Amino acid sequence: MRTVIGIDPGLAATGWGVVRFDGSRFIHVGHGVVKTDPDMPLPLRLLKIHTEIRKLLAKYGPSEAGVEELFFSKNTSSAMQVAHARGVVLMALGQRGITVGTYSPQHVKQAVIGRGKADKAQVQRLVSVVLGLQEIPGPDHAADALAVAICHTNRSSIDVQQRHR
Amino acid sequence: MRTVIGIDPGLAATGWGVVRFDGSRFIHVGHGVVKTDPDMPLPLRLLKIHTEIRKLLAKYGPSEAGVEELFFSKNTSSAMQVAHARGVVLMALGQRGITVGTYSPQHVKQAVIGRGKADKAQVQRLVSVVLGLQEIPGPDHAADALAVAICHTNRSSIDVQQRHR
Repeated sequence: MRTVIGIDPGLAATGWGVVRFDGSRFIHVGHGVVKTDPDMPLPLRLLKIHTEIRKLLAKYGPSEAGVEELFFSKNTSSAMQVAHARGVVLMALGQRGITVGTYSPQHVKQAVIGRGKADKAQVQRLVSVVLGLQEIPGPDHAADALAVAICHTNRSSIDVQQRHR
Repeated sequence: MRTVIGIDPGLAATGWGVVRFDGSRFIHVGHGVVKTDPDMPLPLRLLKIHTEIRKLLAKYGPSEAGVEELFFSKNTSSAMQVAHARGVVLMALGQRGITVGTYSPQHVKQAVIGRGKADKAQVQRLVSVVLGLQEIPGPDHAADALAVAICHTNRSSIDVQQRHR
Protein backbone atom coordinates (compact mmCIF):
# COMPACT_ATOMS: atom_id res chain seq x y z
CA MET A 1 0.00 0.00 0.00
CA ARG A 2 1.48 3.34 -1.05
CA THR A 3 0.62 6.46 0.92
CA VAL A 4 1.01 9.62 -1.14
CA ILE A 5 0.59 13.26 -0.16
CA GLY A 6 -0.23 15.89 -2.76
CA ILE A 7 0.56 19.52 -2.04
CA ASP A 8 -0.54 22.71 -3.78
CA PRO A 9 1.71 25.36 -2.21
CA GLY A 10 0.57 28.91 -1.55
CA LEU A 11 1.41 31.60 0.97
CA ALA A 12 -2.17 32.35 2.04
CA ALA A 13 -3.42 28.79 1.56
CA THR A 14 -1.45 25.60 0.99
CA GLY A 15 -3.67 22.71 -0.07
CA TRP A 16 -2.88 19.14 0.95
CA GLY A 17 -4.44 15.77 0.25
CA VAL A 18 -3.45 12.26 1.28
CA VAL A 19 -4.41 9.12 -0.63
CA ARG A 20 -3.54 5.43 -0.38
CA PHE A 21 -3.21 3.14 -3.38
CA ASP A 22 -3.38 -0.65 -3.07
CA GLY A 23 -2.20 -1.30 -6.62
CA SER A 24 -5.63 -1.05 -8.23
CA ARG A 25 -7.78 1.30 -6.23
CA PHE A 26 -7.43 4.65 -4.49
CA ILE A 27 -8.49 5.26 -0.90
CA HIS A 28 -9.12 8.79 0.31
CA VAL A 29 -7.32 9.48 3.60
CA GLY A 30 -7.71 13.19 4.18
CA HIS A 31 -7.42 16.68 2.75
CA GLY A 32 -7.44 20.31 3.84
CA VAL A 33 -5.62 23.62 3.67
CA VAL A 34 -3.00 25.35 5.79
CA LYS A 35 -3.95 29.00 5.97
CA THR A 36 -1.78 31.90 7.09
CA ASP A 37 -2.78 35.36 8.18
CA PRO A 38 -1.70 38.12 5.74
CA ASP A 39 -1.06 40.36 8.76
CA MET A 40 1.67 38.06 10.04
CA PRO A 41 5.30 38.79 9.08
CA LEU A 42 6.41 36.69 6.10
CA PRO A 43 8.99 34.66 8.10
CA LEU A 44 6.27 33.57 10.55
CA ARG A 45 3.80 32.71 7.78
CA LEU A 46 6.44 30.47 6.20
CA LEU A 47 7.22 28.94 9.59
CA LYS A 48 3.54 28.12 10.09
CA ILE A 49 3.27 26.42 6.69
CA HIS A 50 6.38 24.37 7.45
CA THR A 51 5.18 23.41 10.94
CA GLU A 52 1.74 22.34 9.76
CA ILE A 53 3.10 20.32 6.84
CA ARG A 54 5.55 18.61 9.21
CA LYS A 55 2.63 17.67 11.46
CA LEU A 56 0.71 16.20 8.51
CA LEU A 57 3.75 14.17 7.41
CA ALA A 58 4.16 12.82 10.94
CA LYS A 59 0.44 11.99 11.16
CA TYR A 60 -0.01 10.27 7.79
CA GLY A 61 3.54 9.00 7.13
CA PRO A 62 3.53 9.29 3.32
CA SER A 63 6.59 7.85 1.57
CA GLU A 64 6.00 9.86 -1.60
CA ALA A 65 4.76 13.32 -2.48
CA GLY A 66 3.47 15.15 -5.52
CA VAL A 67 3.93 18.93 -5.50
CA GLU A 68 2.44 21.39 -7.98
CA GLU A 69 4.92 23.13 -10.20
CA LEU A 70 4.94 26.90 -10.15
CA PHE A 71 2.54 28.58 -12.45
CA PHE A 72 4.30 31.49 -14.15
CA SER A 73 1.58 34.06 -14.07
CA LYS A 74 1.86 37.65 -15.17
CA ASN A 75 1.74 38.54 -11.50
CA THR A 76 5.41 37.93 -10.70
CA SER A 77 5.03 39.14 -7.13
CA SER A 78 2.36 36.55 -6.31
CA ALA A 79 4.39 33.83 -8.07
CA MET A 80 7.31 34.74 -5.82
CA GLN A 81 5.11 34.35 -2.75
CA VAL A 82 4.08 30.90 -3.90
CA ALA A 83 7.76 30.07 -4.48
CA HIS A 84 8.65 31.09 -0.91
CA ALA A 85 5.93 28.77 0.43
CA ARG A 86 6.95 26.03 -1.97
CA GLY A 87 10.53 26.26 -0.66
CA VAL A 88 9.54 25.48 2.92
CA VAL A 89 7.15 22.71 1.76
CA LEU A 90 9.87 21.00 -0.28
CA MET A 91 12.27 21.35 2.64
CA ALA A 92 9.78 19.67 4.99
CA LEU A 93 9.56 16.75 2.54
CA GLY A 94 13.37 16.63 2.30
CA GLN A 95 13.64 16.47 6.09
CA ARG A 96 11.69 13.20 6.08
CA GLY A 97 13.46 11.74 3.05
CA ILE A 98 10.21 11.68 1.06
CA THR A 99 10.46 11.13 -2.70
CA VAL A 100 9.08 14.21 -4.46
CA GLY A 101 7.58 14.48 -7.92
CA THR A 102 6.62 17.88 -9.30
CA TYR A 103 3.82 18.32 -11.83
CA SER A 104 2.45 21.15 -13.89
CA PRO A 105 -1.32 21.77 -13.95
CA GLN A 106 -1.31 20.20 -17.45
CA HIS A 107 0.37 17.04 -16.16
CA VAL A 108 -2.19 16.80 -13.39
CA LYS A 109 -5.15 17.18 -15.76
CA GLN A 110 -3.64 14.65 -18.15
CA ALA A 111 -3.13 12.15 -15.33
CA VAL A 112 -6.53 12.62 -13.71
CA ILE A 113 -8.89 13.00 -16.66
CA GLY A 114 -6.75 11.90 -19.61
CA ARG A 115 -6.27 15.22 -21.35
CA GLY A 116 -4.26 18.36 -20.60
CA LYS A 117 -7.11 20.78 -21.11
CA ALA A 118 -10.01 20.70 -18.69
CA ASP A 119 -11.70 23.12 -16.36
CA LYS A 120 -11.33 23.04 -12.62
CA ALA A 121 -14.84 21.64 -12.07
CA GLN A 122 -14.17 18.66 -14.36
CA VAL A 123 -10.97 17.81 -12.50
CA GLN A 124 -12.73 18.10 -9.15
CA ARG A 125 -15.54 15.80 -10.27
CA LEU A 126 -13.06 13.18 -11.46
CA VAL A 127 -11.12 13.44 -8.19
CA SER A 128 -14.27 12.70 -6.21
CA VAL A 129 -15.12 9.76 -8.52
CA VAL A 130 -11.60 8.28 -8.33
CA LEU A 131 -11.60 8.58 -4.53
CA GLY A 132 -15.19 7.42 -4.08
CA LEU A 133 -16.25 10.64 -2.34
CA GLN A 134 -19.92 11.59 -2.09
CA GLU A 135 -19.11 15.28 -2.49
CA ILE A 136 -16.64 17.44 -4.37
CA PRO A 137 -13.71 17.95 -1.98
CA GLY A 138 -12.99 21.54 -1.00
CA PRO A 139 -11.72 24.14 -0.85
CA ASP A 140 -10.14 24.35 -4.31
CA HIS A 141 -6.53 24.16 -3.07
CA ALA A 142 -7.32 20.90 -1.24
CA ALA A 143 -9.02 19.43 -4.33
CA ASP A 144 -5.98 20.45 -6.41
CA ALA A 145 -3.72 18.74 -3.89
CA LEU A 146 -5.72 15.50 -4.10
CA ALA A 147 -5.45 15.70 -7.89
CA VAL A 148 -1.65 16.05 -7.61
CA ALA A 149 -1.52 13.05 -5.26
CA ILE A 150 -3.46 10.97 -7.81
CA CYS A 151 -1.25 12.26 -10.62
CA HIS A 152 1.90 11.33 -8.72
CA THR A 153 0.60 7.86 -7.87
CA ASN A 154 -0.15 7.16 -11.53
CA ARG A 155 3.41 7.89 -12.53
CA SER A 156 6.16 5.28 -12.42
CA SER A 157 8.84 5.65 -9.78
CA ILE A 158 11.51 5.97 -12.50
CA ASP A 159 9.67 8.93 -13.92
CA VAL A 160 9.46 10.41 -10.43
CA GLN A 161 13.20 10.09 -9.97
CA GLN A 162 13.74 12.05 -13.13
CA ARG A 163 11.32 14.73 -12.16
CA HIS A 164 12.10 15.36 -8.50
CA ARG A 165 14.58 18.22 -8.97
CA MET B 1 26.02 46.59 20.60
CA ARG B 2 23.78 45.38 17.75
CA THR B 3 24.67 42.20 15.91
CA VAL B 4 23.22 42.08 12.41
CA ILE B 5 23.33 39.33 9.79
CA GLY B 6 22.96 40.16 6.11
CA ILE B 7 21.83 37.45 3.72
CA ASP B 8 21.86 37.31 -0.08
CA PRO B 9 19.76 34.20 -0.83
CA GLY B 10 20.48 31.89 -3.74
CA LEU B 11 19.98 28.21 -4.47
CA ALA B 12 23.56 27.47 -5.58
CA ALA B 13 25.16 30.03 -3.24
CA THR B 14 23.62 31.95 -0.36
CA GLY B 15 25.88 34.76 0.85
CA TRP B 16 25.99 35.76 4.52
CA GLY B 17 27.80 38.42 6.48
CA VAL B 18 27.70 39.34 10.17
CA VAL B 19 28.56 42.80 11.53
CA ARG B 20 28.39 44.49 14.91
CA PHE B 21 27.59 48.15 15.40
CA ASP B 22 28.42 49.99 18.62
CA GLY B 23 26.39 53.10 17.72
CA SER B 24 29.14 54.80 15.74
CA ARG B 25 31.37 52.21 14.22
CA PHE B 26 31.02 48.87 12.40
CA ILE B 27 32.94 45.78 13.38
CA HIS B 28 33.33 42.95 10.92
CA VAL B 29 32.47 39.59 12.48
CA GLY B 30 32.41 37.12 9.62
CA HIS B 31 31.20 36.35 6.12
CA GLY B 32 30.94 33.45 3.69
CA VAL B 33 28.66 31.49 1.41
CA VAL B 34 26.52 28.39 1.80
CA LYS B 35 26.90 26.37 -1.38
CA THR B 36 24.71 23.54 -2.60
CA ASP B 37 25.42 20.89 -5.18
CA PRO B 38 23.27 21.21 -8.35
CA ASP B 39 23.19 17.39 -8.51
CA MET B 40 21.33 17.17 -5.20
CA PRO B 41 17.51 17.00 -5.24
CA LEU B 42 15.93 20.42 -4.66
CA PRO B 43 14.38 19.49 -1.25
CA LEU B 44 17.83 18.51 0.07
CA ARG B 45 19.49 21.65 -1.31
CA LEU B 46 16.89 23.74 0.50
CA LEU B 47 17.39 21.69 3.66
CA LYS B 48 21.15 22.31 3.52
CA ILE B 49 20.68 26.08 3.16
CA HIS B 50 18.28 26.09 6.10
CA THR B 51 20.56 23.94 8.28
CA GLU B 52 23.65 26.05 7.59
CA ILE B 53 21.85 29.34 8.18
CA ARG B 54 20.48 27.94 11.47
CA LYS B 55 24.05 27.07 12.51
CA LEU B 56 25.23 30.61 11.72
CA LEU B 57 22.36 32.14 13.69
CA ALA B 58 23.21 29.91 16.68
CA LYS B 59 26.91 30.77 16.39
CA TYR B 60 26.64 34.55 16.02
CA GLY B 61 23.31 35.23 17.74
CA PRO B 62 22.16 38.20 15.62
CA SER B 63 19.00 39.95 16.81
CA GLU B 64 18.32 41.55 13.42
CA ALA B 65 18.70 40.55 9.80
CA GLY B 66 18.78 42.25 6.42
CA VAL B 67 17.75 40.09 3.46
CA GLU B 68 18.05 41.00 -0.22
CA GLU B 69 14.79 41.46 -2.04
CA LEU B 70 14.19 39.37 -5.09
CA PHE B 71 15.53 40.67 -8.30
CA PHE B 72 12.93 40.20 -11.03
CA SER B 73 15.10 39.14 -13.89
CA LYS B 74 13.92 38.02 -17.30
CA ASN B 75 14.96 34.55 -16.23
CA THR B 76 11.84 33.64 -14.26
CA SER B 77 13.04 30.12 -13.61
CA SER B 78 16.19 31.30 -11.85
CA ALA B 79 14.21 33.92 -9.90
CA MET B 80 11.95 31.11 -8.68
CA GLN B 81 14.97 29.14 -7.50
CA VAL B 82 16.15 32.16 -5.53
CA ALA B 83 12.64 32.52 -4.07
CA HIS B 84 12.68 28.88 -2.90
CA ALA B 85 16.00 29.50 -1.12
CA ARG B 86 14.77 32.81 0.26
CA GLY B 87 11.74 31.05 1.73
CA VAL B 88 13.83 28.70 3.86
CA VAL B 89 16.18 31.54 4.87
CA LEU B 90 13.29 33.72 6.06
CA MET B 91 11.82 30.77 7.90
CA ALA B 92 15.11 30.14 9.73
CA LEU B 93 15.07 33.80 10.85
CA GLY B 94 11.43 33.46 11.93
CA GLN B 95 12.27 30.39 14.00
CA ARG B 96 14.63 32.50 16.12
CA GLY B 97 12.32 35.51 16.31
CA ILE B 98 14.82 37.70 14.47
CA THR B 99 13.60 41.05 13.12
CA VAL B 100 13.91 41.01 9.34
CA GLY B 101 14.32 43.95 6.96
CA THR B 102 14.27 43.36 3.21
CA TYR B 103 16.11 45.64 0.79
CA SER B 104 16.36 45.97 -2.96
CA PRO B 105 19.81 46.27 -4.56
CA GLN B 106 19.04 50.00 -5.00
CA HIS B 107 18.31 50.43 -1.29
CA VAL B 108 21.57 48.68 -0.45
CA LYS B 109 23.64 50.89 -2.78
CA GLN B 110 21.92 53.99 -1.47
CA ALA B 111 22.64 52.99 2.13
CA VAL B 112 26.24 51.92 1.57
CA ILE B 113 27.57 54.51 -0.87
CA GLY B 114 24.89 57.20 -0.83
CA ARG B 115 23.41 56.73 -4.26
CA GLY B 116 21.24 54.09 -5.91
CA LYS B 117 23.38 53.60 -8.97
CA ALA B 118 26.85 52.13 -8.52
CA ASP B 119 28.73 49.16 -9.84
CA LYS B 120 29.46 46.05 -7.81
CA ALA B 121 33.17 46.94 -7.41
CA GLN B 122 32.34 50.34 -5.89
CA VAL B 123 29.96 48.78 -3.36
CA GLN B 124 32.53 46.14 -2.45
CA ARG B 125 35.26 48.78 -1.92
CA LEU B 126 32.97 50.80 0.36
CA VAL B 127 32.04 47.69 2.31
CA SER B 128 35.71 46.97 2.99
CA VAL B 129 36.31 50.60 4.02
CA VAL B 130 33.29 50.71 6.36
CA LEU B 131 34.31 47.42 7.97
CA GLY B 132 38.04 48.26 8.10
CA LEU B 133 39.02 45.23 6.03
CA GLN B 134 42.40 45.07 4.32
CA GLU B 135 40.95 43.27 1.32
CA ILE B 136 37.73 43.23 -0.66
CA PRO B 137 35.57 40.51 0.94
CA GLY B 138 34.62 37.61 -1.32
CA PRO B 139 33.02 35.87 -3.01
CA ASP B 140 30.51 38.36 -4.43
CA HIS B 141 27.51 36.87 -2.63
CA ALA B 142 29.29 37.28 0.73
CA ALA B 143 30.23 40.90 -0.08
CA ASP B 144 26.60 41.56 -1.08
CA ALA B 145 25.45 40.06 2.22
CA LEU B 146 27.80 42.34 4.21
CA ALA B 147 26.42 45.31 2.24
CA VAL B 148 22.86 44.28 3.17
CA ALA B 149 23.89 43.97 6.83
CA ILE B 150 25.32 47.53 6.73
CA CYS B 151 22.21 48.78 4.91
CA HIS B 152 19.92 47.23 7.52
CA THR B 153 21.94 48.64 10.41
CA ASN B 154 21.71 52.14 8.95
CA ARG B 155 17.92 52.00 8.84
CA SER B 156 15.79 52.88 11.83
CA SER B 157 13.95 50.11 13.63
CA ILE B 158 10.59 51.74 12.78
CA ASP B 159 11.44 51.55 9.13
CA VAL B 160 12.41 47.92 9.59
CA GLN B 161 9.07 47.12 11.18
CA GLN B 162 7.31 48.55 8.18
CA ARG B 163 9.43 46.67 5.74
CA HIS B 164 9.67 43.20 7.23
CA ARG B 165 6.79 41.60 5.33
